[in-house]
Amino acid sequence: MFKELPPNYRPLEESTVIDYVRSQADRLNGVFRTGEPLEAVEVGDGNLNLVFKIWAQDDPERTVVIKQALPYVRLVGESWPMPADRARIEAQALDVEYRYCPQHTPRVYYFDPEMYLIVMQNLNHHIVMRKGLIQGIKYPHFAEHIGVFLAKTLGMTSDLVLDYRTKKEEVARFINPELCKITEDLVFTEPYRKTERNAYHKEIEPQVLAFQADEALHVEMAKMKEKFMTHAQALIHGDLHTGSIMVNETETFVIDPEFAFYGPMGFDIGAVIGNLFLSYASHEVRSPDPEKRADFRRYLTDTVIDLWHVFEREFQAIWDQVDPMDMPKGYQEDYMLRVLHDTAGMGAAKMMRRIIGLAGVEDIRGIEDVEERSIAASLALNIGRALLLEREQMRTIEDLVEVATACKPTYPWTD
Amino acid sequence: MFKELPPNYRPLEESTVIDYVRSQADRLNGVFRTGEPLEAVEVGDGNLNLVFKIWAQDDPERTVVIKQALPYVRLVGESWPMPADRARIEAQALDVEYRYCPQHTPRVYYFDPEMYLIVMQNLNHHIVMRKGLIQGIKYPHFAEHIGVFLAKTLGMTSDLVLDYRTKKEEVARFINPELCKITEDLVFTEPYRKTERNAYHKEIEPQVLAFQADEALHVEMAKMKEKFMTHAQALIHGDLHTGSIMVNETETFVIDPEFAFYGPMGFDIGAVIGNLFLSYASHEVRSPDPEKRADFRRYLTDTVIDLWHVFEREFQAIWDQVDPMDMPKGYQEDYMLRVLHDTAGMGAAKMMRRIIGLAGVEDIRGIEDVEERSIAASLALNIGRALLLEREQMRTIEDLVEVATACKPTYPWTD
Repeated sequence: MFKELPPNYRPLEESTVIDYVRSQADRLNGVFRTGEPLEAVEVGDGNLNLVFKIWAQDDPERTVVIKQALPYVRLVGESWPMPADRARIEAQALDVEYRYCPQHTPRVYYFDPEMYLIVMQNLNHHIVMRKGLIQGIKYPHFAEHIGVFLAKTLGMTSDLVLDYRTKKEEVARFINPELCKITEDLVFTEPYRKTERNAYHKEIEPQVLAFQADEALHVEMAKMKEKFMTHAQALIHGDLHTGSIMVNETETFVIDPEFAFYGPMGFDIGAVIGNLFLSYASHEVRSPDPEKRADFRRYLTDTVIDLWHVFEREFQAIWDQVDPMDMPKGYQEDYMLRVLHDTAGMGAAKMMRRIIGLAGVEDIRGIEDVEERSIAASLALNIGRALLLEREQMRTIEDLVEVATACKPTYPWTD
Repeated sequence: MFKELPPNYRPLEESTVIDYVRSQADRLNGVFRTGEPLEAVEVGDGNLNLVFKIWAQDDPERTVVIKQALPYVRLVGESWPMPADRARIEAQALDVEYRYCPQHTPRVYYFDPEMYLIVMQNLNHHIVMRKGLIQGIKYPHFAEHIGVFLAKTLGMTSDLVLDYRTKKEEVARFINPELCKITEDLVFTEPYRKTERNAYHKEIEPQVLAFQADEALHVEMAKMKEKFMTHAQALIHGDLHTGSIMVNETETFVIDPEFAFYGPMGFDIGAVIGNLFLSYASHEVRSPDPEKRADFRRYLTDTVIDLWHVFEREFQAIWDQVDPMDMPKGYQEDYMLRVLHDTAGMGAAKMMRRIIGLAGVEDIRGIEDVEERSIAASLALNIGRALLLEREQMRTIEDLVEVATACKPTYPWTD
């Protein structure tokens, strides 16, 4: 079914990873000294891979991360095989992202094609953005950073910049069927039908069933799925939720592009915005203080607006490279508007799947109080539905935010 | 720049092709008897390849065609290199088309990857459709045949039918950068700017210059080019004009899919329809008898309408295979409407490039009388522009035909 595993492939363990690192020390630009004592811990909390942190015993700042692909979905086990070759895709995508946006891409020391692993920078002064947002931490530079990352990585890998041959060869190099299939099923299909893998909390079932019976929603979601499957616009990250972003006060890094392929730009931008609105929905209930709630939610909507404006500003540098006779101003405006509409629709898909589908997010599913969790989930669903169905009326990012902030939770049910 | 030529590659000549065929006789399903006298002639009238007809001296019905790719553009010479590997793409595309629609695809005996040539059925009882249309010959089964061909080859190679992995592997297999680049330049770009390769007749220059200064036209053409470059919807033929169709009273064959790649369905359907409208424009002047003119033009517009309805009818069989929960009726209708809009826009692009750009068509450029030729060319340009700019208002194929038939030539200029 998949490419066979290389003969030397073996999953690492905490007990073997240090020997592995020692054997490759000359590829690490001198991070570790020959023979010095190292320590390692396995920290993978994702669904698919092993992740090890390795550091020098006498200086934890000299450290690397190893991410190794398993030939199956870790969350489920060997019954769900998954090609370890995705590590190659991830390494190649990191390479492209680093080329265009090194300040927001972890540094890769090397990719080991025999072991399907990547040795890279340990972002040990950063936390997963989702966790920060749950704690109500504001990241003042995030909008600027992610807007730049999106414009550079999407714009520079599109037909607007790449020559005709490179673009098409890159499409072929990033063909990524199995990982795309996960998205096709879990994001675009299963939430809208009764399936065993959906994992919503029982309390919001009435709204889930209403969504699953909603013909207009099915039609628009089918269009978004088609676009995901056919629109080879740019090399997209493919999984750019707030769990794939590492942040602190001053820095932002995007990690984990194993889902990368040539797809619609709006899928990445929508992933960021959709996840900010998931946080927004969760902060409907997260603090007992209404002013604090409103303040954090304003931070989130301001971030959505700001990151789009940064994206537009940085994308202008791309437009400045193209021939205005082939791509006149009116075309450029139409292009950006279509990216905005895709962003809304894709963001909507990313939100709703997190409430209804297999893979939830801690922002919402982690709320312990059933009432509060249901209010947040219901609000997230309604924002998703509105962003999807009203996307083509939007002209600006402010319109998008207005559509989202006009939504209310349906829960508690009145009938 | 391209894949290197295989060491045994050599362009065939009339004097060497018979020996070549003899050496491969066992791969021809007994068409020729061992050692019998054969005759051969080179008949390539296209821009890119060598084409030989070979037949048994005592029975011309036992015959094959050999199409061999040259490593450069034949029309221009070795200064314009072109990968001979396009013969592989053509052989693979013929294979796919034969799988889904054998009745309208020439039979391939074999593809020789060392010589970049295809040995196939000689359609010796058929003529190039363009030549038939110029003579005013009606093909009563053409609409039915081409509608079936389009629905089968496009629908069956799309995500609607192919499983997720096969589709993506097919996209990679049919990456075809150099041939796509020809279309990107000659169809979508050069006609709308001043370039040396444009080859319009001087008499229509005022209208050409007006088109080249038309901002709305530039904007819409840029959208069509983007769609051509990014919309991996189905395996398209990529060059489906009436010169790629061999017909007679009862049969229709589509040949020459060397431009094949994963692109928008509307590009193929638009190529057919655009070329029928080029014929329509030429028949504005082709006969001195107004009734005869009107009659043939009615045949052409009826053909456009009929072939679309056949396409829709046959495509319904595709829709019947998909899950209506994922792809509800409203989505299916929207999908077909978008294919119609693409058809109009792509057909428009195919028409206008034939008037302004490098590669003209005999239907129009072959009209000897300058006045008449200018009227036909002017009408073709106006039909193209209208189909492009009014496409999104169309709801049916009848709307499309109405837009086209409402057009008049601008020539002779009144100011």
